[in-house]
Amino acid sequence: MNFKAIILAAGKGTRMKSKFPKVIHKVCGKEMVNHVIDVCKNSGVNDIVTILGHESKTVKERLPKDTMIAMQTEQLGTGHAVMMAKEYINDEDTIVVLCGDTPLVKEDTLKKLFDYHLENGYHATVLTTCVSNPTGYGRIIRDENQDLLKIVEQKDASEEEKQAKEINSGIYCFNGRSLRESLDLLDNNNAQEEYYLTDTIKIMRDKGHKVGAFNGSTIEELMGVNSRVELSKAEQIMKNRINESHMVNGVTIIDTNSTYIESGVEIGNDTIVYPGAMIRGNTKIGSSCIIGMNCSIINSQIGDYTEVESSTITDSIVGENTTVGPYAYLRPKSNIGNNVKIGDFVEVKNATIEDNSKASHLSYIGDAHVGKNVNIGCGVVFVNYDGKNKFKSIVKDGAFIGSNSNLVAPVTVEAKGYVATGSTITDNVPQGALAIARQKQVVKEGWVEKKDQKDNK
Amino acid sequence: MNFKAIILAAGKGTRMKSKFPKVIHKVCGKEMVNHVIDVCKNSGVNDIVTILGHESKTVKERLPKDTMIAMQTEQLGTGHAVMMAKEYINDEDTIVVLCGDTPLVKEDTLKKLFDYHLENGYHATVLTTCVSNPTGYGRIIRDENQDLLKIVEQKDASEEEKQAKEINSGIYCFNGRSLRESLDLLDNNNAQEEYYLTDTIKIMRDKGHKVGAFNGSTIEELMGVNSRVELSKAEQIMKNRINESHMVNGVTIIDTNSTYIESGVEIGNDTIVYPGAMIRGNTKIGSSCIIGMNCSIINSQIGDYTEVESSTITDSIVGENTTVGPYAYLRPKSNIGNNVKIGDFVEVKNATIEDNSKASHLSYIGDAHVGKNVNIGCGVVFVNYDGKNKFKSIVKDGAFIGSNSNLVAPVTVEAKGYVATGSTITDNVPQGALAIARQKQVVKEGWVEKKDQKDNK
Amino acid sequence: MNFKAIILAAGKGTRMKSKFPKVIHKVCGKEMVNHVIDVCKNSGVNDIVTILGHESKTVKERLPKDTMIAMQTEQLGTGHAVMMAKEYINDEDTIVVLCGDTPLVKEDTLKKLFDYHLENGYHATVLTTCVSNPTGYGRIIRDENQDLLKIVEQKDASEEEKQAKEINSGIYCFNGRSLRESLDLLDNNNAQEEYYLTDTIKIMRDKGHKVGAFNGSTIEELMGVNSRVELSKAEQIMKNRINESHMVNGVTIIDTNSTYIESGVEIGNDTIVYPGAMIRGNTKIGSSCIIGMNCSIINSQIGDYTEVESSTITDSIVGENTTVGPYAYLRPKSNIGNNVKIGDFVEVKNATIEDNSKASHLSYIGDAHVGKNVNIGCGVVFVNYDGKNKFKSIVKDGAFIGSNSNLVAPVTVEAKGYVATGSTITDNVPQGALAIARQKQVVKEGWVEKKDQKDNK
Repeated sequence: MNFKAIILAAGKGTRMKSKFPKVIHKVCGKEMVNHVIDVCKNSGVNDIVTILGHESKTVKERLPKDTMIAMQTEQLGTGHAVMMAKEYINDEDTIVVLCGDTPLVKEDTLKKLFDYHLENGYHATVLTTCVSNPTGYGRIIRDENQDLLKIVEQKDASEEEKQAKEINSGIYCFNGRSLRESLDLLDNNNAQEEYYLTDTIKIMRDKGHKVGAFNGSTIEELMGVNSRVELSKAEQIMKNRINESHMVNGVTIIDTNSTYIESGVEIGNDTIVYPGAMIRGNTKIGSSCIIGMNCSIINSQIGDYTEVESSTITDSIVGENTTVGPYAYLRPKSNIGNNVKIGDFVEVKNATIEDNSKASHLSYIGDAHVGKNVNIGCGVVFVNYDGKNKFKSIVKDGAFIGSNSNLVAPVTVEAKGYVATGSTITDNVPQGALAIARQKQVVKEGWVEKKDQKDNK
Repeated sequence: MNFKAIILAAGKGTRMKSKFPKVIHKVCGKEMVNHVIDVCKNSGVNDIVTILGHESKTVKERLPKDTMIAMQTEQLGTGHAVMMAKEYINDEDTIVVLCGDTPLVKEDTLKKLFDYHLENGYHATVLTTCVSNPTGYGRIIRDENQDLLKIVEQKDASEEEKQAKEINSGIYCFNGRSLRESLDLLDNNNAQEEYYLTDTIKIMRDKGHKVGAFNGSTIEELMGVNSRVELSKAEQIMKNRINESHMVNGVTIIDTNSTYIESGVEIGNDTIVYPGAMIRGNTKIGSSCIIGMNCSIINSQIGDYTEVESSTITDSIVGENTTVGPYAYLRPKSNIGNNVKIGDFVEVKNATIEDNSKASHLSYIGDAHVGKNVNIGCGVVFVNYDGKNKFKSIVKDGAFIGSNSNLVAPVTVEAKGYVATGSTITDNVPQGALAIARQKQVVKEGWVEKKDQKDNK
Repeated sequence: MNFKAIILAAGKGTRMKSKFPKVIHKVCGKEMVNHVIDVCKNSGVNDIVTILGHESKTVKERLPKDTMIAMQTEQLGTGHAVMMAKEYINDEDTIVVLCGDTPLVKEDTLKKLFDYHLENGYHATVLTTCVSNPTGYGRIIRDENQDLLKIVEQKDASEEEKQAKEINSGIYCFNGRSLRESLDLLDNNNAQEEYYLTDTIKIMRDKGHKVGAFNGSTIEELMGVNSRVELSKAEQIMKNRINESHMVNGVTIIDTNSTYIESGVEIGNDTIVYPGAMIRGNTKIGSSCIIGMNCSIINSQIGDYTEVESSTITDSIVGENTTVGPYAYLRPKSNIGNNVKIGDFVEVKNATIEDNSKASHLSYIGDAHVGKNVNIGCGVVFVNYDGKNKFKSIVKDGAFIGSNSNLVAPVTVEAKGYVATGSTITDNVPQGALAIARQKQVVKEGWVEKKDQKDNK
């Protein structure tokens, strides 16, 4: 059995007021259409065809490489959109059709739809849900066998049909052969002059094929995003879903409303996430960590028992039992060891800092390798740039770099080397040596009074 | 036709537990009474009279200069309050009366109230709304023509009257002449010994004047703020209104609950605002920007395609395609060009930084003019203060200021001047020259071991 | 009358997926069991016995020293748990039994329960509430005197009993003697082979004792926390309760959803708390302060009229009319005076800074005493650590510490001493003297062009 998905993503989404097509706007860090694609993949769909139209290039470059596309240059209705993928529809396929702007549909719902469709031998099955107020939705009318009799749009519904609470989700499952045959019979003899995918249901029934309706969705899952207000609502629903899954796994999230975790993130149990944290991309956080308020962590790994407070970490690795922040900034390729302290107002970039070292405050460590048990004083700058090129510094185990000193790269401080406070180091520092580069202190007695007199003259 | 508003703002607001009178407490950055005044102005009101009482001086100094005030030294009821403005009420005026503690009323509602009042030729029109549970509100009783028969307070209402779901908003529109005449007839023969403005309705009807009720408000708009709990609710409602208007305009707001935008702010489309951002005052943000998490931006202009991350910007201008932060602080009169990088732990104050320049980390640029293509190293300080006076520094195009160096103002670094790392620059640097002010490095071999021995003795 | 509480806290809480037992997970900064203990104390309970089981050591070390514990090594039901405390139950006691995982119960509710229990002469009184959907709860069945007839579990309830909307809270008040006697008669002849505390009700009634039901709780108060999702909900409820109490007291909280204040915090009126603030522990904030967005304040005192913006303050004291931040970090034992400015990217640790002094940017002041009217320049480091030991610096009144200079402790700058920009100060600075320790500036004309030629070769 080959499962294929056809995802309708050709629309512009005028109400988004955007230069970008609607389906690439993001929910919890992932484009809406990619949410739909991922849900399809996770529910067992083998092949995915996305129907593109408006700004197709922009959408295409954001789609997974292992999916296919078909072009719909004119938007002539949902049936027309599916026709564009006809070459991909084989007789033996099971085809699911979804919209690229419904990011909240769940993989479990799709799986159950597929099962229901196949177990009952339907040629088409529409996913449905029941709502208390169905006004505006297409109503599901079942026959005496509880099979699908027809889908009636609001404007065409009789008073009795309007009472139906079961509505069309816009998500369908088809037998490949029946879908192909039905598409060939679709016409646009209607007010809008559009080809409606729902007309395939009537075509199949008229042929004597059995079609079904699977009441297996929630209304929340079916939410289509047509505006930024709806985008924001979808974000909130998905955010809470993600947060709840972490809580179920043993993560304490103090305020789920103010915690923003993207869908691919892993977090170990007994970790506590404080409000305002945003954890994004391919990030993995260990157990028993504290992710303090307002942390931004992107594409990074954090070891167990580590505490991060009000800091920004991007594309970096942080070991176990380490503390970061508050107000630290780990830029890409920072590789921080275990039991390290990266304190306040410290930036690290493209640098390794090994176990038990400290950079407690107001320092910049860029393009460097810092060994174990090193103390980086306050205000130290790893000077990696001369205006043209960048160079690397090495500081070996047990070295002490005095405050407000500069290591002008390329330079090496050997093991246990000691740099005096306020020194600009341009040459290597031998093992166990003191390097000092500063002027002796001179005192001018009575200078302040003289200056006052001069200033006041 | 002259539209005038009389705004009742004499009360203390005891439940606020504040040293300030109630109406100057702020909602989304603007005093409640000023919200009411602005809504009046935007709905076409020409003249505004605010009735002041408690702490009148404190309120008065926060009111627009182009509005008038009247004093109510004793608080003897709403009718009494309006009497205080009698000198401003002319026969030909249309008078709207509102309370200064209802900041949520909408301009569109007032406009429709005015239209309804005038088109139907009413002498007085009360704004109303319908609620499911009207307990406690004054009920609207209409006559057989659907004109207003009377307003009945909860305690005076018959069982039948209590069934009315339409309630009095406390906002009224009056014919000027009829209002003046009715005020003259008001008395305080009631339990509270107060003059009630609602009594004018009966007076007018008794004279044979037609009075009306315009069911054109939502209950939300009418919320009066009497406590900080209610203040917080009003803030939330207005915040969401403002955020929704930006979303409709094409701004992505990831979390509307945690995004705080004041009412005068403009934001271009396709800009994304992350959670925790607070955007205040007279701020204008361009299109396609990223306003990252926890930004505070006040009275500033941000150009298109600029990214600001976890930073504070006040009374400043930032160009296009520039990046700011994380953890940067632009203080007043920072004027940042295009394609500039202001990085982490950088403060700028009263300084211009021209296009394509960078101050990537841990620097202070105060009282300065920095040209194009300048590189400000890490830890650089523009030393603008000698304990008595402040001075200005100039750094011209293409200069390079080495890390942890000081520019002691007044000083000029000419074009392509190069300041060596760790130098304190007190004299001007000529074009293309190197300026260096530091001691040579000295190495003392074996010093660490000797120090250890000494420390351990 | 001696009031005693028995708190059931022996469970593991498997659904928490934690290495810690359930009752020590925190809500608004305090362990759930300690919330219950504090509510008991505040409602007049004299003695508290906590029943421990899983990870008893871990729980015990978090309990107040003035409370008692009893061990329940096997979990054989609520009745069994209370039996473990039998030695503490005296005839004349009034015993209240609660669960350690219901942190939201209110002291006022308990007080009223005690009154009801005693005034009506009940031998046992169960606290109850009414809910619209009681499915799953134990139903309260009253007799013709409105005394408690029985508590019926869902599975044992007749159709008529299932209609009862009044439910068992799991909180009980007992006459000490009757409780002891009933516990002796409890058995575990039931499907679960557990000893149920509710069976004591039947035992007492069978003896002819009067037992009661006090419908005096809200359902919210009774919420038991069995998972992190529920923990998060309890946090939200308690957070809003705390915030509301501050608003009632005259504190403006702009967004109650994004403001996190722990239960012991005090805040003066007319202080404004901005979104994202987290105020914890034993903190006291004065009147008319501004606590700006994203502040973290722990165990600290803040004087009146002080403004803190986007900063972190721990175990410190800040005076009146002082400004802190944005992006400042006050570590433990910072003692900041009145009219002080602690600016951006400034860290203070174990240091006193007296009135009217300033450290405006990018400085570290550790292990120091700074007098009045001192100006600490930008980039100044109080060098307190030589790699082995920490030392203290003293800067006396009116001194001026130039930018990017280092004070190498131990060192004293006497009154009005002046340290030149970029100096490393290792010796004391006499009163009114200038101390300077830097090299003179040298200019090498044409250096940049030569470097370019060399670089390009």
